[in-house]
Amino acid sequence: MTSAPTITSCPIGIQAEGTRRERDSMGEIEVPANKYWGAQTQRSLIHFSIGTDRMPLPLYHAYGVVKKAAALVNAADGRMPQWKADLIARVADEVTAGKLDDHFPLFVWQTGSGTQTNMNVNEVIANRAIQLAGGEIGSKKPVHPNDDVNMGQSSNDSFPTAMHVVTLLEIEDRLIPSVEKLIETIHSKADEWMDVVKIGRTHLQDAVPLTVGQEWSGWASLLEDALKNLHHAREALFELAAGGTAVGTGLNAPPGFSKAIARKIAELTGRPFVTAPNKFAALSGLDAMVRASAGLRGLAVPLLKIANDMRWLASGPRCGLGELSLPENEPGSSIMPGKVNPTQCEAMVMIATQVLGNDNTVAVAASQGQLDLNVMRPVILANCLHSIRILADGCHNFRVFSVEGTEINRPKLAQYVNGSVMLVTALSPEIGYDKSAEIAHIAIEHDLSLKDAALKSGYLDSATFDRLVNPLDMVGKGTAGA
Amino acid sequence: MTSAPTITSCPIGIQAEGTRRERDSMGEIEVPANKYWGAQTQRSLIHFSIGTDRMPLPLYHAYGVVKKAAALVNAADGRMPQWKADLIARVADEVTAGKLDDHFPLFVWQTGSGTQTNMNVNEVIANRAIQLAGGEIGSKKPVHPNDDVNMGQSSNDSFPTAMHVVTLLEIEDRLIPSVEKLIETIHSKADEWMDVVKIGRTHLQDAVPLTVGQEWSGWASLLEDALKNLHHAREALFELAAGGTAVGTGLNAPPGFSKAIARKIAELTGRPFVTAPNKFAALSGLDAMVRASAGLRGLAVPLLKIANDMRWLASGPRCGLGELSLPENEPGSSIMPGKVNPTQCEAMVMIATQVLGNDNTVAVAASQGQLDLNVMRPVILANCLHSIRILADGCHNFRVFSVEGTEINRPKLAQYVNGSVMLVTALSPEIGYDKSAEIAHIAIEHDLSLKDAALKSGYLDSATFDRLVNPLDMVGKGTAGA
Amino acid sequence: MTSAPTITSCPIGIQAEGTRRERDSMGEIEVPANKYWGAQTQRSLIHFSIGTDRMPLPLYHAYGVVKKAAALVNAADGRMPQWKADLIARVADEVTAGKLDDHFPLFVWQTGSGTQTNMNVNEVIANRAIQLAGGEIGSKKPVHPNDDVNMGQSSNDSFPTAMHVVTLLEIEDRLIPSVEKLIETIHSKADEWMDVVKIGRTHLQDAVPLTVGQEWSGWASLLEDALKNLHHAREALFELAAGGTAVGTGLNAPPGFSKAIARKIAELTGRPFVTAPNKFAALSGLDAMVRASAGLRGLAVPLLKIANDMRWLASGPRCGLGELSLPENEPGSSIMPGKVNPTQCEAMVMIATQVLGNDNTVAVAASQGQLDLNVMRPVILANCLHSIRILADGCHNFRVFSVEGTEINRPKLAQYVNGSVMLVTALSPEIGYDKSAEIAHIAIEHDLSLKDAALKSGYLDSATFDRLVNPLDMVGKGTAGA
Amino acid sequence: MTSAPTITSCPIGIQAEGTRRERDSMGEIEVPANKYWGAQTQRSLIHFSIGTDRMPLPLYHAYGVVKKAAALVNAADGRMPQWKADLIARVADEVTAGKLDDHFPLFVWQTGSGTQTNMNVNEVIANRAIQLAGGEIGSKKPVHPNDDVNMGQSSNDSFPTAMHVVTLLEIEDRLIPSVEKLIETIHSKADEWMDVVKIGRTHLQDAVPLTVGQEWSGWASLLEDALKNLHHAREALFELAAGGTAVGTGLNAPPGFSKAIARKIAELTGRPFVTAPNKFAALSGLDAMVRASAGLRGLAVPLLKIANDMRWLASGPRCGLGELSLPENEPGSSIMPGKVNPTQCEAMVMIATQVLGNDNTVAVAASQGQLDLNVMRPVILANCLHSIRILADGCHNFRVFSVEGTEINRPKLAQYVNGSVMLVTALSPEIGYDKSAEIAHIAIEHDLSLKDAALKSGYLDSATFDRLVNPLDMVGKGTAGA
Repeated sequence: MTSAPTITSCPIGIQAEGTRRERDSMGEIEVPANKYWGAQTQRSLIHFSIGTDRMPLPLYHAYGVVKKAAALVNAADGRMPQWKADLIARVADEVTAGKLDDHFPLFVWQTGSGTQTNMNVNEVIANRAIQLAGGEIGSKKPVHPNDDVNMGQSSNDSFPTAMHVVTLLEIEDRLIPSVEKLIETIHSKADEWMDVVKIGRTHLQDAVPLTVGQEWSGWASLLEDALKNLHHAREALFELAAGGTAVGTGLNAPPGFSKAIARKIAELTGRPFVTAPNKFAALSGLDAMVRASAGLRGLAVPLLKIANDMRWLASGPRCGLGELSLPENEPGSSIMPGKVNPTQCEAMVMIATQVLGNDNTVAVAASQGQLDLNVMRPVILANCLHSIRILADGCHNFRVFSVEGTEINRPKLAQYVNGSVMLVTALSPEIGYDKSAEIAHIAIEHDLSLKDAALKSGYLDSATFDRLVNPLDMVGKGTAGA
Repeated sequence: MTSAPTITSCPIGIQAEGTRRERDSMGEIEVPANKYWGAQTQRSLIHFSIGTDRMPLPLYHAYGVVKKAAALVNAADGRMPQWKADLIARVADEVTAGKLDDHFPLFVWQTGSGTQTNMNVNEVIANRAIQLAGGEIGSKKPVHPNDDVNMGQSSNDSFPTAMHVVTLLEIEDRLIPSVEKLIETIHSKADEWMDVVKIGRTHLQDAVPLTVGQEWSGWASLLEDALKNLHHAREALFELAAGGTAVGTGLNAPPGFSKAIARKIAELTGRPFVTAPNKFAALSGLDAMVRASAGLRGLAVPLLKIANDMRWLASGPRCGLGELSLPENEPGSSIMPGKVNPTQCEAMVMIATQVLGNDNTVAVAASQGQLDLNVMRPVILANCLHSIRILADGCHNFRVFSVEGTEINRPKLAQYVNGSVMLVTALSPEIGYDKSAEIAHIAIEHDLSLKDAALKSGYLDSATFDRLVNPLDMVGKGTAGA
Repeated sequence: MTSAPTITSCPIGIQAEGTRRERDSMGEIEVPANKYWGAQTQRSLIHFSIGTDRMPLPLYHAYGVVKKAAALVNAADGRMPQWKADLIARVADEVTAGKLDDHFPLFVWQTGSGTQTNMNVNEVIANRAIQLAGGEIGSKKPVHPNDDVNMGQSSNDSFPTAMHVVTLLEIEDRLIPSVEKLIETIHSKADEWMDVVKIGRTHLQDAVPLTVGQEWSGWASLLEDALKNLHHAREALFELAAGGTAVGTGLNAPPGFSKAIARKIAELTGRPFVTAPNKFAALSGLDAMVRASAGLRGLAVPLLKIANDMRWLASGPRCGLGELSLPENEPGSSIMPGKVNPTQCEAMVMIATQVLGNDNTVAVAASQGQLDLNVMRPVILANCLHSIRILADGCHNFRVFSVEGTEINRPKLAQYVNGSVMLVTALSPEIGYDKSAEIAHIAIEHDLSLKDAALKSGYLDSATFDRLVNPLDMVGKGTAGA
Repeated sequence: MTSAPTITSCPIGIQAEGTRRERDSMGEIEVPANKYWGAQTQRSLIHFSIGTDRMPLPLYHAYGVVKKAAALVNAADGRMPQWKADLIARVADEVTAGKLDDHFPLFVWQTGSGTQTNMNVNEVIANRAIQLAGGEIGSKKPVHPNDDVNMGQSSNDSFPTAMHVVTLLEIEDRLIPSVEKLIETIHSKADEWMDVVKIGRTHLQDAVPLTVGQEWSGWASLLEDALKNLHHAREALFELAAGGTAVGTGLNAPPGFSKAIARKIAELTGRPFVTAPNKFAALSGLDAMVRASAGLRGLAVPLLKIANDMRWLASGPRCGLGELSLPENEPGSSIMPGKVNPTQCEAMVMIATQVLGNDNTVAVAASQGQLDLNVMRPVILANCLHSIRILADGCHNFRVFSVEGTEINRPKLAQYVNGSVMLVTALSPEIGYDKSAEIAHIAIEHDLSLKDAALKSGYLDSATFDRLVNPLDMVGKGTAGA
C-alpha cells in the first residue's frame, strides 16, 4: 500500500482543453480533458446516446453517500488506508452536494444493471481524488476506480442500494411534505365550510345533502389514506443490497460488510436503513421499487378524482355547476376573451395519468428480471423519480395556485339544496320507500317543489313535511356517518 | 309493527312454473316464478345482459354477512322487531352458505354503484323470508326489501362494505395459504440444495458461482416480501363504509349505527373490521381496493420472474441450460413426439400478465370517481377477485404439479462451474481488476481454462491460483451476502 | 390405409356411465365415459383447474373450420383417404355448429401454445368420428387424433390460425354491426337536433355556442374513425400460420399445404384469409392480435368519453347541467326514492376500463415470446375475445336502453345560451381581443348580461352588438368548421 | 389597417438586461428583457414550474409551420395585409428552423388545451416581428399576438393541428428510417445465414431444426409488419383540426379557412394533410394520437421479443446457449473482470417497457376528454414524442452497436442439432406419432443418440433412419413454411 500523499484543496474543475486518454480493460479512449469521467463513461456516452433522458441527478447524490459509506467501512475494516478512505469520502461529499453534477452525463438507456453509472461515479471520484492528491488524472493512482472506490462492491449491489436511498429520500424529503401541505390546506377549507349545506350528487344525479366541509373532508381523507399507504410502501426501501456484490454471495467483500455499510448509510442519512436479509432477492428483484411505485400511484388515483371534482364543481361561470370559484391565474383562451380555466386541475389530471403509465412501466420492467440479476434498473428508477417529482411539484402548485384561493358560491349552493327533490329520502323512514318514491315522481313529472308534491300526494301534511325535511338535520354530524 | 308470524322450515326453492308479477317504484314486471328475485333484479337482467361476466358469487356470500349484521343491529337498536331480524339473519346465513346462489344472476356490467346487486340481495332475502313466514312471495309483507332488509343502508355504503369483506376474506382464506405453501416448498428445495454450487448468471452472462439453494432462497424471499406487502395492503380493507348511507352523512341510519354494524361484521367474520373514519371518502373513493390490487400485482411480478427463471433453467433437455428437470405432466406437442414442456410455468406467466392488466383496470377505474360516489365498483371488484382466484389456484397448481417435483441435474451444474471464466473475480482482490480482466480475455480468446490462462499471463503461479479460485469458497455463507 | 368403414348417423352423445381408459404417450388415464375427449384433455383438466376462465367457445367453432380445411386439403393431396376427410369434415361441422360444446372443458390457464386445446379438438373429433364409423371410442381407429385429425399440423401453427379466424369473425360478425348501429342512432339524433343551439363548454367552462346536433355528430365521428381504424387493425388477422407446423419450416406438411389450407379456410368462411408470408414470425409473434386489441381499445377510448359526456349533460334533474334526459330504466337507489341514474353510461365506462386493462395484458403478453414460439396465446386470445364481447353487447344495450330514448331539454339549452358571457368572442374580430376581454370581465364582475356589459364598456352601441352577437350565426354550417 | 412598416434584418436576440413589462387581459407582468415571450408565457412559467419536462422543441418547429400557413391564408383571403403575413411567415420560419428555441420555456404540465404554448408561440412571433418591423417589443404593434398571429385560430384547433404535424413528421423523418435500417441489417444477416441449420426451441425446449437465417427472417418480418401497421396508424394524423377554432364551429374564421390552411400546411411540409371532416371530433378527441401511440407500441412489442431472443442466444460464453456472439462494446462489470454484457439488448428492452407505459398514459388520457374539448393534450403529445425519440435512437444504436456486429458460433449450432432428440418428428409420418414418441422417450431415459434409440426400439432400421432424419431436409425451403 502506498503511503499517504499530501491532499490539496484544489477547487473543482480541470483546467485543460481538448481530450486526454483514459484506459479500461478494453483499451484506451479519448475523453474530454476538462471532465473527471474516464473510459467506461465515455464508452457509454458513445454507445448510448438515446433520447434526452439523463440518469436523474439525485441518484448521483445518493451514490455519493454509498461510496462514502463503503470507503469508511473498508478503512475501519483495515482493507483501505484511512487517508484514502477520507479522501474518497471527501469527494463523495462533493458528489452528494451536487458539485460534480456536470460530470455525470449518462443516459437512462444504458446497461440494465446501472454498471455504467456506477463506473461513472467510480471514475469521477477517483480522478477528483487523484487531483486532490496531486496525482495524474487518468493514472488510477493513488486511487483506482475499481480497486478502491468500488472496493467490496459490484454495480449489482451498489446500484440498487443507491436506488433505494434516492427513492426513499425523494419520497420523504420532496413528496411527502408537499402532499402534507396540500392535505392541510384542504382540511382548513373543510373546517371553514363544515356547516355550509350543499346538495349531494351520486351517479351525477341529485342526491341527499351534505356540507361543503364534509365533501372536502372526504378529499383530505383520501389523500391521508394514500399518504399512510405510501409510508408503508416506502418501508421496503430501507433494505439495502450492499454486501451482495456480484450475485448475492458477497464475494470479494469481507464478512460483516453488509451490515456495516447499511449501518453507515443509515448514520449518514439519518434513516433506518438495514441490510437486506436475502441478497439474492435484492439483486434479482426490484420489488421494493414496484411497491414504492404503487404507493405513488396510490396518490395519483385520488388526486385525479379530486382535481376532476374541483373543476366540475367550478364549471361555469353561468352554464355549469358553479359551486366553486377557482383562482384566476391566466387568460384561458387565445380566442375567447375573458375566459378563465381550471388549469391547475388540468395539470394535476395529466400528472396523474403520467404516474399511472410510469407505474405500468415499473411493474412490467420489474417482472423482467432474469436469473440472478434484474437488468431493468435504470428504467425503473427513472420512472419512480419522475413520478415523485411531478407529484411533488404538482401538489405544490395545485395547492398554492388553486386550492388555497378557492372560494364557494353560497347563493348557488343554497339554490340547489332548496330545489332538489332528493330530500324526499328523509320521508322514507316515516312513510316507507314506495310512497316516498311516488312523491318524487310527482314532483319531477309536474315540476313541483318537493313539498307541493308531498302535499299533493296526500301521504302527509305540511307540518309533518316541515318536521321531517330539513336539510340541516339531514347532513348528520361530522364525517364518520351515522 | 306487525306481530311475529309463525316461521316455518320450508326448504329452499319455489315450487312454481311460469312467471309471477313483482313491483317496484317503476311499476310491475314479470319474473320467473321459481326464483326469489324481484322487480329490480329482473329489470337489471333485461337491461344489462352484457357478456358472460356474472357478479362473483363470493360477493353474495359476503353480502349475507352484511345484511345479517344490519338486521341484528337494527333489532338491538329497537328499530326492527327481533323476530324479523332473526328471520332476515337466518336467510342471510343461507345466502352466505351459498344455498341461494341460483338466485343471484346479475352481470358485472350494471349500475356502477352495485345498487342492482344490493337490491337482488334485498329482494331474495325478503322473498325467502316471506316464504318462511308463510306470506305471499312478492307481497313485500311481512318483510320489505327496502324498508327492512335494507334498513339503515344504501347501496352506496353497503356495496363497498361487502366489497371490502369479500376481498379481505378471499385474500386471507384463499390466496395467502396457497402462496404460503408455495413459499414453503421453495424453501424446502432451497434447504435441500443449499450446498450445491452452480454458476451465477447476470445479464444472462456467466458470472461468479452461488449455490442452487441460494438461488431458490432468493425466489422464496421475493415471495415472502410480496406476501408481507400484501398483509399491509389488505389492511385498508378493514375500514367499512356501512353507516354512511346515501352520501356519507348517515341519513336514515341512527346514531351509532356505523360502529355497531362494523363491530357486528367483525364478530361474524372473526376479522378486525372497523368503521371507516371518513364516510365521504369511503363512498367516493375505492382506494383500499386499489391498494389491495397493488398487493396482488406485487405477487404477480415475482411469480412471473420465478416461472421464467425456472423454465429457462429447465430448458433443454439437450440444447438448453438443463440445470433443472421439471415434472413431465403431459405430452408437450401434437406433432413432436416425446416433447415435454414447462406448462405450469407458462400458465403462471400468463396469470401474471392477466393480473397486471386487471390491476391496470382497477387503478384507472378507481380514478374515475365523480363527486360523492365512485360508480366503478363492479368492475373493480370483479378484477380484484379474478386476480385473487387465478393467483391462488395458479400457485397451488404450480407448486403441486411443478415445483414439488423439480429435480436438479448435478453433472450439468458441475460442468458449468468448472468451465466458467468468471471465477477470475476471485483473483481481483489479490492482483487487481485490470490484470484479472486480462486473464479473462486470454481465456476466452484462446479457449483456455481459467487456470491455464492465469498461468499463461504470468501474473500468478499454480499454487496461488488453486488457493484463490475455489468455487466452494466463493459462494459465501447463507443468504445475506458478506 | 384402411378401407372405408360404414358411416352411421349416430346422434351426438355417448351412452355410458363412469369412466373409460384413454391412452397417450404418457400412458393410460381414466376419462368420463360420456365425453368424447381423450387422455391429453383429461391430463390438462387435472393439471390446470385454475379459476373459472374456460377457453372461449367461439374458438372451438373456429377450430372446427381449421380441422375441416386441413382434412379436405390432405385428401385432395392424396395423403388421406377421401372417406376419412369427409368424416372428419362432418364432425368438424358439428364442432363449428356448437353441437359438441360440452366436450371442450379446458381452462385458459394451460400450456401457452394452446396444445392442450388443439389436442382436445383432435381427440373429440377423432372419437366422434370413430363413433360414426362404428369403431371403439378411444381406440384411435380408424381415426387417430394426431396422425389424422392433426395431419400436417402442429398446435404451434393451428392454434394461432384458429385464433386469427375466431378473432376476425367475432370482430366482423359480433362487434362491428353493434357499433355501426350505435353510430347510426347517434347520427339520427345529430340530424334531428342539428339546428338546436346550445352553449359550448371547453375546460368545462362556458364557451361559444354550437348545436346539439354538431356535438352529437362529433361523437358519431369519433366512433366512425375508431371503426375505420378497426377495419385496418383486423387486416393482419387475415394472414394464417397454418403450414408452418412445429417451428415454421413446415416439417411434415407437404409442399403447398400452407396456401391450400388458407385458401380452403377462406372458402369455408367467406373471408379473404391468406397464408402468412413468414411462418417464423407467425409462430413466434402474436402481433396481429396486439393490433386487433389496439383496435378494440380504439373503440373503448371514445366510448368512455361519450358515455361520460352523456351522463354529465344529463346530470340533474335539478342540480346538474340538465341538457339531456336519458331513459329511466330502473329505480336508481335503494335508499333515495325516485332517483334514476345513467346506468347504461356507467356500464359503458366500466367496460371501457376493462378493455384498457385487457389490452394492457395483451401487449405485455405478446412481448413475452421466446425464441421460436410465443407461448402466451390463451391469455391473449381470452382477453381479445372478452373485449370484443363486452364492447359488442355493451354498445347494443347502450344504444337500445339509453341512446335511442335520450331527449333534450330545450328550455334549459336556451337558458344557457342566453346567459353565457362567452358570446363575447363574436366581438373580437371587430373590436379586438383585448377590448372584448374587458367586456367579459365587466359582465362577470358586475353580474351583467353580456349586452349590458358591452354597452357599459362604451366600445360599441346596441345595434352593433345585436348585429354581431347572434348565437345562430355563431354556430357555422355543418360539421367541418370554417 | 396600418401601412407596411420597413422590415429590417435585425439578428435574433434582444440586447437588454433585467425585465420589461408585458400586458395581457389580466394586467401587467415583468418578463425577462432578453426574451421574446410575453405576459401569458410568463404567467405559465410562474404557475407551472412542475418537474423538468419541457414541451418538446419539435412541437414548436411544427407550430411555426401552422402559424406561417395561417398568416398566408389570411393574407390570401384579404383579412391581413400581405406585408404582415410575410413578416409573420418569416419569423415562423425562424421558429421552424429552431432559431428561437431559447424562447419556448414552458412545461408539459400546463393547461390541458396547450393554450399557453400557443400563446408562447404567438407572443414570440409577435415580438420578433415587431422587432423586425422596428416597433417596440411588448407593444403588440404592428403585430398582435392574438389578433394577428392567432388570426382565425384558437388554441383549441391550432394546438392539435401542430400535434398532428409534429407527430407525423417525427414518425416519418426520425423513426421510420431508423427502423427500416434495422430491418435491412437483420435481413442481410438472415440472407447470410439462410442455410446454417440450428435447433429450434419452442417452450424453450428442444424442437425440430430450422436455419439461423429463417429465425432472423422471422425477426425482420415482425418488424416489417409493425412498420406496415405504423404506416396505417399514422394516417389519421393527416386530418387537421385547424379551422374549427374554439369549439369546432369555426367561429371567427372565414368560410373556406379549414381547407385552405390544411392545403397550405400540406404544401409547406410536402405531406398529404387535409382538413378533418368533423371538427367537433377533432377538438374533443385525440384518438388519432392514440392510434399513433398504438403504432409505436406495435414496434416496442417485437423489439422487446427480438432483443430478448438475441441476448438469450448470446448467453454464455460458456454456461449459456452460446449460439450468437454480440459485439463487445464496454467492460460489463465493475467487479467481474473480463465480463461483457448484451447492453444494447438491455437498453432496447427498457425502451420497450417505457413505450408500453407511455402508451398506457396516452390511452387513459385520451379517454378523459370532457364535452367539447379534450384537455389532456400536452401529456399525450409528450408521451408520443418521447416514445418516437427513444425508439428511433434505440433502433439506431441497437443496429450499429449490436446487430451489425453479431456473429454466429457454428460449432455450437452444429453440436445442438446433432444432439437433439426432437429430430424424431421426421419419423412421425412414416411410423406414426405414438411409436415416435416411444423412441424419443427411450433416447432421453437411456441418454442415447436418437439413432441408437430408434434402432433399439426395433421400429426401423439404420438405412430408413438415415433416409428420414436429415436436418437439412427438415428445414424446408425459404420462410413461408410448407
